[in-house]
Amino acid sequence: MQTTSLALHTDKYQINMMYAHWVNGTHKRKAVFEAYFRKLPFKNGYAVFAGLERIVHYISNLRFTMEDIKYLSSQEENYDPAFLEELLQFTFQGTIYAMKEGALVFPDEPLVRVEGNIMEAQLVETAILNFMNYQTLIATKASRIKQVSGDNKLLEFGTRRAQEADAAIWGARAAYVAGFDATSNMLAGEQFGIPTAGTHAHSWVQSFESEQEAFDAYAKVMPDQVTLLVDTFDTLGSGVPHAIETAKKLEAQGKKMNAIRLDSGDLAYLSIQARKMLDEAGFPYVKIVASNDLDEHTIFNLKAQGAQIDTWGVGTQLITAADQPSLGGVYKLVEREVRGGMQPTIKISANPEKVTTPGKKEVYRLVDPKTNKAIADYICYPDDEQPKQKEPLQLFNPVHPYMKKTIKNYDVVTMLEPIFVEGKKVYELPTLEQIREYHREQIGMFWPEYLRKLNPEIYRVNISPAAWNLKQKMISDYIQS
Amino acid sequence: MQTTSLALHTDKYQINMMYAHWVNGTHKRKAVFEAYFRKLPFKNGYAVFAGLERIVHYISNLRFTMEDIKYLSSQEENYDPAFLEELLQFTFQGTIYAMKEGALVFPDEPLVRVEGNIMEAQLVETAILNFMNYQTLIATKASRIKQVSGDNKLLEFGTRRAQEADAAIWGARAAYVAGFDATSNMLAGEQFGIPTAGTHAHSWVQSFESEQEAFDAYAKVMPDQVTLLVDTFDTLGSGVPHAIETAKKLEAQGKKMNAIRLDSGDLAYLSIQARKMLDEAGFPYVKIVASNDLDEHTIFNLKAQGAQIDTWGVGTQLITAADQPSLGGVYKLVEREVRGGMQPTIKISANPEKVTTPGKKEVYRLVDPKTNKAIADYICYPDDEQPKQKEPLQLFNPVHPYMKKTIKNYDVVTMLEPIFVEGKKVYELPTLEQIREYHREQIGMFWPEYLRKLNPEIYRVNISPAAWNLKQKMISDYIQS
Repeated sequence: MQTTSLALHTDKYQINMMYAHWVNGTHKRKAVFEAYFRKLPFKNGYAVFAGLERIVHYISNLRFTMEDIKYLSSQEENYDPAFLEELLQFTFQGTIYAMKEGALVFPDEPLVRVEGNIMEAQLVETAILNFMNYQTLIATKASRIKQVSGDNKLLEFGTRRAQEADAAIWGARAAYVAGFDATSNMLAGEQFGIPTAGTHAHSWVQSFESEQEAFDAYAKVMPDQVTLLVDTFDTLGSGVPHAIETAKKLEAQGKKMNAIRLDSGDLAYLSIQARKMLDEAGFPYVKIVASNDLDEHTIFNLKAQGAQIDTWGVGTQLITAADQPSLGGVYKLVEREVRGGMQPTIKISANPEKVTTPGKKEVYRLVDPKTNKAIADYICYPDDEQPKQKEPLQLFNPVHPYMKKTIKNYDVVTMLEPIFVEGKKVYELPTLEQIREYHREQIGMFWPEYLRKLNPEIYRVNISPAAWNLKQKMISDYIQS
Repeated sequence: MQTTSLALHTDKYQINMMYAHWVNGTHKRKAVFEAYFRKLPFKNGYAVFAGLERIVHYISNLRFTMEDIKYLSSQEENYDPAFLEELLQFTFQGTIYAMKEGALVFPDEPLVRVEGNIMEAQLVETAILNFMNYQTLIATKASRIKQVSGDNKLLEFGTRRAQEADAAIWGARAAYVAGFDATSNMLAGEQFGIPTAGTHAHSWVQSFESEQEAFDAYAKVMPDQVTLLVDTFDTLGSGVPHAIETAKKLEAQGKKMNAIRLDSGDLAYLSIQARKMLDEAGFPYVKIVASNDLDEHTIFNLKAQGAQIDTWGVGTQLITAADQPSLGGVYKLVEREVRGGMQPTIKISANPEKVTTPGKKEVYRLVDPKTNKAIADYICYPDDEQPKQKEPLQLFNPVHPYMKKTIKNYDVVTMLEPIFVEGKKVYELPTLEQIREYHREQIGMFWPEYLRKLNPEIYRVNISPAAWNLKQKMISDYIQS
């Protein structure tokens, strides 16, 4: 997708801070940043991490073009030419660890960890957040829809309502990661190999003298994949009867009609009636596709009402994550170089949940070997207190530390993978099918209580005693100072 | 921006319908489509049309590449090679009329009208809606924010929470059209010439031994535009006092500090206290910038509480249009070629507001020459019942036709401009500054009652008797048949 450099797809303050560090002589100092979110979207019990492939392409292609440099010098007469020259030579030389796409992830866990000099680590903040926030949001929304739709097929139909082209395309990808079966967007199909789906619009019917003529003409051209939109005039009064006529003509040629599509009205009532009409006419194999502002709530309710729908076309509500259109991921400095060594750093806030946890951290998932279900996630410093398989480990709630639990029998899964090491890509991007498969496995590792749409159980994410103690010490040091 | 073809940035059903028309021999038949929305977003009294420049670039560059063709043939063994060959030769040869960017627009008005053969007119539906829906949505949201912020400066800060890169960039442009003063996104600055703004993050402060050292270092590098973020540790306890120290050092060099920025906590209380502290220290010229999940409601309320804020940084809520993240614009067939002539067509729906108004339509704005304020918009067929300046014109409400009003003294402004005529671009794209100026003029032509954020007056959008009668006749013809 990305054919041009996105070096300037960043906030001005990043460039200003880079310049200020450069002038100040501190631009080569090392820093560690962690990207994470504080709150799950949609009151869901988990999020689905996505966006890494986009981040990898971005980092790999990160260069300032001559046009970029000219633009910067025109913006800020302040900028020293030697600084701009340095930008022109810039490539990312840092180290990035990240969750794998499709992973189930939770609040306050580092999802992407960036280590490098302060200049490069600042530059990439904005784009990393932009990519991670959007794709993770949409994958999470799609996963909620997948949870309620069971074995039904799910189609992503949102392009016309997406927030511009990138959102349509990367959103289609995120939906596919989380279990959607196809997208209507052909560019997403071309770029990512996602299966595509779609039939015809109301305008197809309107451009013929009659609905019957329109249906028959369509069936003649695409006899092996006929899905007819039946609500241009009157769903049960004309659409379904005309579709049945077309199905008969197809059968006479030895072909089977695929489906009808309902796109307005009471989908529960209409689908039940249409199912009866199709069955009575001898077409039990003709499926019913439904669309019209669907989301996990409408699908859940329609199914509870016995709607006879086999395939759901989901558009606006998914592609914009309409009930919460942003994830709110942040990117915070956790360590900085001081006199050649690395030192943890903290950001205090009047808002307690905004206080950061100092220091560079790892994320481990502790898994019950008997059930292969996740028990808790454990965040700790590298090479320090790493959970060791089968050694008793005391977990405590970081907000309410008196809530403790000791676990003994567990496997340890390292969640953060090395992606770039000192500028070199060391991670081989999995195929989209592998990502989907990994996501399915991840879902399988969580009890249904964590996965349900309404009031899910809260999954345990614990920090190590060392991390907790350091955070408390730094807060109280600050308050005393 | 657009360096690659977006021909496949379309729904699969468009390609399928194109192919079905091609096989059916109907693909060269003329059609007229109109793009419009049915409901204003955010319960606002108007929308701000935007997205045309993006549409013009898209149409001008609309070609299928060899890769696109290969992809299509791999997807659908059905497609006849001669069809694919025709796609390879494809360029848009139709005619497009549209509103000018920055125009105030209303429900059910054609915003973009596409006339061409059915194949090309179907192909472009998805992308036109995608572009128009997003930019119009964001321009409208930005305009609401502008309405409540008076003479304060407005900065667009949303990139990290935008729905991917295009949304950040085109959203920044839409916000600027509607009166924002600058964006933080450097790529939007480079591409569109929008002024950029930004200072430093919490990480700048954290990367120094002390807040004071961080502020002083920043001020040394950028002495002419120092805005200091004062909430890394404790806004009133450390941030503002340290900023005042820096301001003193700047004054000693004959420089003036620009501003402080508040990014958390109670912005009303903090800004009032910070203003006092700055004034008492002798820095009445140091401005206060505020950010933190702001929108038109929080800004309105903060101003009502006497918050001492000069500049508002608006991010997530604007760039995602968080309270309604999609516009819902549609693209409907209104005329089709039948035996060499054009015939109006209608889409019936069980949902009355979804019934289309048949026939190709113009939009006129009727303006009171004494006040230069808009009276109503008038939608009618071209060359038929066009309102003539100063001839009495009866307006009636299309939903409640008994509500009538006759106006006598009015000027007539044609709202739809020719953009492409038979494939040739005839519209010279205005500069972004011209678009902003046009938008300001447009806002000036509406009484404040239509512009207010809460419960605005409903502006009259009327259709001509001929359009109304034809619609009723076609509905009743359909019901009788």
